[in-house]
Amino acid sequence: MTHSVLIKNGTIVTAADSYQADVYIKGEAVHTIGKNLNALPPFNQANKIIDATGCYLFPGGIDPHTHMELPFMGTYSSDSFESGTLAGLYGGTTTIIDFAIQAQGKSLNAGLDEWHRKADGQAVGDYAFHLAVTDFNEQTQAEVQEVIQKRGVSSFKIFMAYKGALMVDDLQIARLMAETARFGGMVIAHTENGDMVANNVAQLLTEGHTGVKYHGLSRPPICEAEAAGRFMDLAHHGEHECYIVHLTCEESLNRVRKATQRNQRVFVETCIQYLMFNDSQYELPGFEGAKWIFSPPLRKAKDQEALWHGMNQNLIHTVATDHCPFCLDQKRMGEQDFSKIPNGAPGIENRFELMYSEGVEKGRISLNKFVDVTSTAAAKIFGMFPRKGTIAVGSDADIVIFDPTVEHTYSVENQHMNCDYSAYEGWRVKGKCRTVLLRGTVAIDEGKTLINKGFGKYIHRAPVMEPLLSESQKTGDTPCQIG
Amino acid sequence: MTHSVLIKNGTIVTAADSYQADVYIKGEAVHTIGKNLNALPPFNQANKIIDATGCYLFPGGIDPHTHMELPFMGTYSSDSFESGTLAGLYGGTTTIIDFAIQAQGKSLNAGLDEWHRKADGQAVGDYAFHLAVTDFNEQTQAEVQEVIQKRGVSSFKIFMAYKGALMVDDLQIARLMAETARFGGMVIAHTENGDMVANNVAQLLTEGHTGVKYHGLSRPPICEAEAAGRFMDLAHHGEHECYIVHLTCEESLNRVRKATQRNQRVFVETCIQYLMFNDSQYELPGFEGAKWIFSPPLRKAKDQEALWHGMNQNLIHTVATDHCPFCLDQKRMGEQDFSKIPNGAPGIENRFELMYSEGVEKGRISLNKFVDVTSTAAAKIFGMFPRKGTIAVGSDADIVIFDPTVEHTYSVENQHMNCDYSAYEGWRVKGKCRTVLLRGTVAIDEGKTLINKGFGKYIHRAPVMEPLLSESQKTGDTPCQIG
Amino acid sequence: MTHSVLIKNGTIVTAADSYQADVYIKGEAVHTIGKNLNALPPFNQANKIIDATGCYLFPGGIDPHTHMELPFMGTYSSDSFESGTLAGLYGGTTTIIDFAIQAQGKSLNAGLDEWHRKADGQAVGDYAFHLAVTDFNEQTQAEVQEVIQKRGVSSFKIFMAYKGALMVDDLQIARLMAETARFGGMVIAHTENGDMVANNVAQLLTEGHTGVKYHGLSRPPICEAEAAGRFMDLAHHGEHECYIVHLTCEESLNRVRKATQRNQRVFVETCIQYLMFNDSQYELPGFEGAKWIFSPPLRKAKDQEALWHGMNQNLIHTVATDHCPFCLDQKRMGEQDFSKIPNGAPGIENRFELMYSEGVEKGRISLNKFVDVTSTAAAKIFGMFPRKGTIAVGSDADIVIFDPTVEHTYSVENQHMNCDYSAYEGWRVKGKCRTVLLRGTVAIDEGKTLINKGFGKYIHRAPVMEPLLSESQKTGDTPCQIG
Amino acid sequence: MTHSVLIKNGTIVTAADSYQADVYIKGEAVHTIGKNLNALPPFNQANKIIDATGCYLFPGGIDPHTHMELPFMGTYSSDSFESGTLAGLYGGTTTIIDFAIQAQGKSLNAGLDEWHRKADGQAVGDYAFHLAVTDFNEQTQAEVQEVIQKRGVSSFKIFMAYKGALMVDDLQIARLMAETARFGGMVIAHTENGDMVANNVAQLLTEGHTGVKYHGLSRPPICEAEAAGRFMDLAHHGEHECYIVHLTCEESLNRVRKATQRNQRVFVETCIQYLMFNDSQYELPGFEGAKWIFSPPLRKAKDQEALWHGMNQNLIHTVATDHCPFCLDQKRMGEQDFSKIPNGAPGIENRFELMYSEGVEKGRISLNKFVDVTSTAAAKIFGMFPRKGTIAVGSDADIVIFDPTVEHTYSVENQHMNCDYSAYEGWRVKGKCRTVLLRGTVAIDEGKTLINKGFGKYIHRAPVMEPLLSESQKTGDTPCQIG
Repeated sequence: MTHSVLIKNGTIVTAADSYQADVYIKGEAVHTIGKNLNALPPFNQANKIIDATGCYLFPGGIDPHTHMELPFMGTYSSDSFESGTLAGLYGGTTTIIDFAIQAQGKSLNAGLDEWHRKADGQAVGDYAFHLAVTDFNEQTQAEVQEVIQKRGVSSFKIFMAYKGALMVDDLQIARLMAETARFGGMVIAHTENGDMVANNVAQLLTEGHTGVKYHGLSRPPICEAEAAGRFMDLAHHGEHECYIVHLTCEESLNRVRKATQRNQRVFVETCIQYLMFNDSQYELPGFEGAKWIFSPPLRKAKDQEALWHGMNQNLIHTVATDHCPFCLDQKRMGEQDFSKIPNGAPGIENRFELMYSEGVEKGRISLNKFVDVTSTAAAKIFGMFPRKGTIAVGSDADIVIFDPTVEHTYSVENQHMNCDYSAYEGWRVKGKCRTVLLRGTVAIDEGKTLINKGFGKYIHRAPVMEPLLSESQKTGDTPCQIG
Repeated sequence: MTHSVLIKNGTIVTAADSYQADVYIKGEAVHTIGKNLNALPPFNQANKIIDATGCYLFPGGIDPHTHMELPFMGTYSSDSFESGTLAGLYGGTTTIIDFAIQAQGKSLNAGLDEWHRKADGQAVGDYAFHLAVTDFNEQTQAEVQEVIQKRGVSSFKIFMAYKGALMVDDLQIARLMAETARFGGMVIAHTENGDMVANNVAQLLTEGHTGVKYHGLSRPPICEAEAAGRFMDLAHHGEHECYIVHLTCEESLNRVRKATQRNQRVFVETCIQYLMFNDSQYELPGFEGAKWIFSPPLRKAKDQEALWHGMNQNLIHTVATDHCPFCLDQKRMGEQDFSKIPNGAPGIENRFELMYSEGVEKGRISLNKFVDVTSTAAAKIFGMFPRKGTIAVGSDADIVIFDPTVEHTYSVENQHMNCDYSAYEGWRVKGKCRTVLLRGTVAIDEGKTLINKGFGKYIHRAPVMEPLLSESQKTGDTPCQIG
Repeated sequence: MTHSVLIKNGTIVTAADSYQADVYIKGEAVHTIGKNLNALPPFNQANKIIDATGCYLFPGGIDPHTHMELPFMGTYSSDSFESGTLAGLYGGTTTIIDFAIQAQGKSLNAGLDEWHRKADGQAVGDYAFHLAVTDFNEQTQAEVQEVIQKRGVSSFKIFMAYKGALMVDDLQIARLMAETARFGGMVIAHTENGDMVANNVAQLLTEGHTGVKYHGLSRPPICEAEAAGRFMDLAHHGEHECYIVHLTCEESLNRVRKATQRNQRVFVETCIQYLMFNDSQYELPGFEGAKWIFSPPLRKAKDQEALWHGMNQNLIHTVATDHCPFCLDQKRMGEQDFSKIPNGAPGIENRFELMYSEGVEKGRISLNKFVDVTSTAAAKIFGMFPRKGTIAVGSDADIVIFDPTVEHTYSVENQHMNCDYSAYEGWRVKGKCRTVLLRGTVAIDEGKTLINKGFGKYIHRAPVMEPLLSESQKTGDTPCQIG
Repeated sequence: MTHSVLIKNGTIVTAADSYQADVYIKGEAVHTIGKNLNALPPFNQANKIIDATGCYLFPGGIDPHTHMELPFMGTYSSDSFESGTLAGLYGGTTTIIDFAIQAQGKSLNAGLDEWHRKADGQAVGDYAFHLAVTDFNEQTQAEVQEVIQKRGVSSFKIFMAYKGALMVDDLQIARLMAETARFGGMVIAHTENGDMVANNVAQLLTEGHTGVKYHGLSRPPICEAEAAGRFMDLAHHGEHECYIVHLTCEESLNRVRKATQRNQRVFVETCIQYLMFNDSQYELPGFEGAKWIFSPPLRKAKDQEALWHGMNQNLIHTVATDHCPFCLDQKRMGEQDFSKIPNGAPGIENRFELMYSEGVEKGRISLNKFVDVTSTAAAKIFGMFPRKGTIAVGSDADIVIFDPTVEHTYSVENQHMNCDYSAYEGWRVKGKCRTVLLRGTVAIDEGKTLINKGFGKYIHRAPVMEPLLSESQKTGDTPCQIG
């Protein structure tokens, strides 16, 4: 007999709604939502009945930007798919989209293969992949159709930063956009001008400026804004939609606004750290600031304001983490040279609760907006909706039972991420993920892990845009639309 | 025993979701939503079981801008609350927000009283009121708290147009904003610069330009954009949110974009006619163009494009009608002088279906966006959510069973609006409101009216913003937030 | 025999050029400019030979915005045309454009008559008039042609501020623009939204905020920017050029930039005080800040930066003073209520030298730009070029012999303005007007006055724009163009 | 005895002034300007007396953008320095700034040497050089100081277009800006995104679109605007001034406007062909349109409007030609493939008169603006002022005696450019260069050439910006400032 769960007395919140009702789950999906289901068979005969009185039921968080086991700057990010997705579950995130990286000179498929090796059978939570393209040429172009239609990867990342390493030129971007669009794929970008940054870094190091704080100064807002603007120009010119990852500042956001004026559609992601911190972290004594070394760097208070408002103005659609932890020993590789500090920080366990605590609780965003930016929008933009991203009849029962009254404190002591520091050490948070269900199974309950390594499934994603190809070439998947 | 309805096999669409499920209604509200409820008691024992196979279930439309029985320009708009709301129901609109007008020199309450006299016991569909303030002074200021807290009216309209008649000055606007904000009210505005228009009209008439087409030329986009910008400046200066009614053009929309740059929040409405038509209507032979004389006037094709994109960019939140029909005899009052043509046109019966047919069906907006702009956003902005504006457990069962496959043709012959012409005569429309439920009762079914005059209820609205007043002054209503 | 002067060895600077040459003046005008004229008859036989070695020869300054003997806020500005223009000459300003004010209910001609009574036979320096229109109606409309063609006044000022007093509505502005344009006149505006200000003042006073610093808070940048934008919208709509007086802030300047985008031409003036001070003056102890109470008020450091750059970007064309001094006893009328402090400050004696010292000497503007903003642009915009505003053969010999090496200190002790304080008390200035010639006559030399009351001539100005009227209606004057 | 000339009765026009006076030239420079010099010795004893009654005296034109004998796209532009500068003189242009091109892999000095070989002893008119840098590395970086200080070249051009050929990357641009700024040099750019263009060209050719009109479609405004924006971002980031060559469209101009908002200073050049033509030329039958194939291509009528207004708004400072003629046989290299048509057209002989005829005569610009954009601004921006660019005592007597009443017709039959077509065949022009003096010598008179090959001098230019280097490193040249 199929497994069933009844969650009673909770307040269900979606990107649009908020109402009190009981949720009946059958198998992996939501089956029925109603008043007083607890009084009716078969609902009250569920295998498991959870009382969610006083709690919100949120769709499981989706983090569209993570890097598990990423080889980067001479080391590896410290979370495996196992530890990283488990930490995500503890923090209310049930699905991640990680970046499979094409090695330069290798095929796209080889990159995907490599990432499946890391994740398959290891991940505790569900996962999907973006594909980072570092070398777009005739050979890799020929793989695009298969990657989208067979392998379930419809978003292709390019780096406009990291000159000499991951960076591609505008011609590759334009061609990648054209090819992926044929099959309903979309190009997403890390928008920093790698040439500007290279020049700044060289100049700063020449001048003997090697400390942590020069990381921020080497990548000021204009480096990001320029690349963001250029990326949107490329997309507009080719008549493509596009997505900007980890946008951090007012200057970039204003270029997005400008782009909307020509009737362009751009999707924008920011990350939790850009909302929570400003660049005063880089002024902390000694090497402390290295904990927040990532790219783009932290910005000013005015930028934080702009990001919060950008969410409410629907200019920013998703809040991710760019989760890419490095332990302090790894960070110390750059003790004598900021440009050698591995870029990245832990965050997957904190994002969801912080958005509630600093967002909803402080009146900056509504409950609906909270759900939208932490879950729904990512599912829609990246072809996982309505399976993921909502609490609705027929959707995967990825549900966070969230107690808004519990206050707790973040610390490296109590986190599940494989990192020897917390970026939010000592932060007081209002609201906690009490119980987390993944596809109908209670994964986390009151601080205990109830599922194992390998429970996480690979999510084959649909095309994200209407493919330009002819009817016969289509897969049958329908692209999702964000409204 | 409470009345119950089961709608089976439909596809429920909300502003966020879209999924197939059965809906069980008990009394006036949605009770349960689930898979195969038809197989389970008590659901399958409902008083009425409707098969919605192949149909969408949309939340009943909300038209936030109508004028029933409006005394204007020496005559009255031709729809009564009875005929107007009935026509609305036929067209999938279950709730309207009409404008009660304060007569200059009279009290706010008197204006509301007058409109209740027109509507109470007459309306077929549900209705709420905005209050149009034409004379804001110490006396009327004293009424604001009562209007919001006792009479359920939390949005106050001002006219920046109609100099010498309804127009107020900036000082009144600023003061009205300040006073209404204290109690959670919001000011909404008709943004055209009445001085500019007056000058243009005088000049055109002096030059002998009296024909229909000069109506448009007397109120070019800059008249609207200037006032829209000024209204937002006033709101921003006072730190208030605000709402612009019937925004029509790219130029105004760009001023909204500009306002967002200073982290301002502005709500924007457009109307169905600005999406459907451009100013080529004014070039029709003879007096034909008078059918589309309203203010602001029709614009260019590029403005129509900008409006559609503005919706997808979430810069435009609602699509209303400004329903204010005048029969052709009334229109003819201005046969010798365009400035005497009563401003207004019928539309309440067409809006919802046209947005589907021209919006969703033609790929301009998603299903979710369709629901948002025709219903959800208005409910949220104007304090009626979640009672109105969604299909969710606990919400009023205002549901449109919509058959997307039916094609039909608009004509004055088959419309229910009390007007002797249709603005959309001969328009071919894809998709039809097959059955419309209002608070759980089937109001319209396959072209038949099943409820009577007086069925419509007055909707007491909650404050629309967080009131600035002290705790003890609050009503207990919580303002709704749009996310 | 005609009077003649030879100025030798100076460096002549115009808005375009800078070169060393001798200047020979015959009568009131420049006759010859050349190398070594001192060696050639008849030049070396001039009545007067002045050695300007090491000095610049600048065109006499033109201050396009002064208020001598202005009745305002219950008192009169403290400089007469005699004292004010004399002080101007000491400070290198040889011509002023003062504002004749139409009294409400009176005719335009009566306003001009009144100002001629004040100035004729009294002024030491040359003077022209703008006409401030406070009541534009059919009667005053009928005077416009005569005012422009017969009385030499082609610029008409309106106030968007001072609600209930000088303020006019948008309709009057639009009509004034249309009528003046017919004859080559231009409308110029004080752009602050009088309604916003009135609301702010009332609110601040209600809250008991009566001190000096609330003056600034009652008129924040948005009040100015809104009105500036509206004024430009009105001009653009009517296809007129326009001029904004005393623009003070980045926010307004950005609206000017925006206007240029629609191919609009707008002339902009700022005043010396907005370049020299920011609003920290209002934080001075006691009533001290009242010395800088004028409208618009002082702004932020970022606004000062924007103004300097705006000059170099040619968005700001002229630097005036809005010279309108009130003695401290007059200022004290508002000791208990900031809104009663007479608005205005002395400055005509300081503007020219300060622009050199803080502008040229500090590298913010070039010598040519200095001449342009202090003299040439005003002459061109307001129909006095090439008679005024340059050093060229045939132009009035209004020449400032300026020693850039002399440092001196401003003080009420050594100023010639009739005011008992200096806004620049203790300011150290680099560069001094050593000798000032007005129409070929040495007016000021090394601190001594060499001309008398009544030496100043009224300057009949030409139309400022190409008149729209037919050939036969034209005066023969050709409008000047600023390039 | 020194050669002398008296030009009597002309109207002298500079960027600021316009007045009637006589000009006395001694040697190569202007000596005296005055009234009735004809009546005074020694002026009336000049070697040559020219009556300029009814004529304007304009400063000789400066064309800051020419390509004589340029090796490009497999051929050479068809004008030598001899034929090109002579044609320039006929058309009122007395000085050109041609582009010396560094060959990739070669030194900067070698590029200059090569261009001196082409020009020295050959040019009829005066000439200076920009240096086009195609390969900026440590070796070439080491040459910058010498190039600026010893060789009189202070402007360095880079190409953002022509991927795989002349194009440099952003890192080279940033480094070149930094290095040249140290010595007062400035970077100037051809702003088109070479990657975008390469992608477009490849795509069009793949689709079989090989005709002339696809040239324009392969380089739409966004390609230019993107690069222009990026170039300004690079300059702003490094705190440098910069200059954009041949800006063509509203979209680029709006990005310049945007840049001014951050207090940035940008110099902008357009070319005569973008003012005179729009892209309808590309629709001419057959291969006719090839005559106007250059990059960027011709734009729309709205862009032409924007350029004219941009001049009056001082956003556009210079009007050049990008003179780079190819004969029709050369053009035919691209008969089967638009991308092989040599880019360039003749224009040096037409620019000056066309700007008068289409600009001044048609009321689009003032006489002063005409002088500014055709001569003065280029001299100031590029370090040749006041020697070149004005008619003032001490300046080179480069004077065009211009008869505004003469009407004539352009034709390949009567042109002096070495090209077998005229871009302006049959154009009727109002106003003609009657006599042209170069450094005091009559070069052209009434259609006759009076000087020979080799008369033209190389103009050693001063730094264009304040060098960042220490006092001891400076050359003594002072940079010029444009006001």
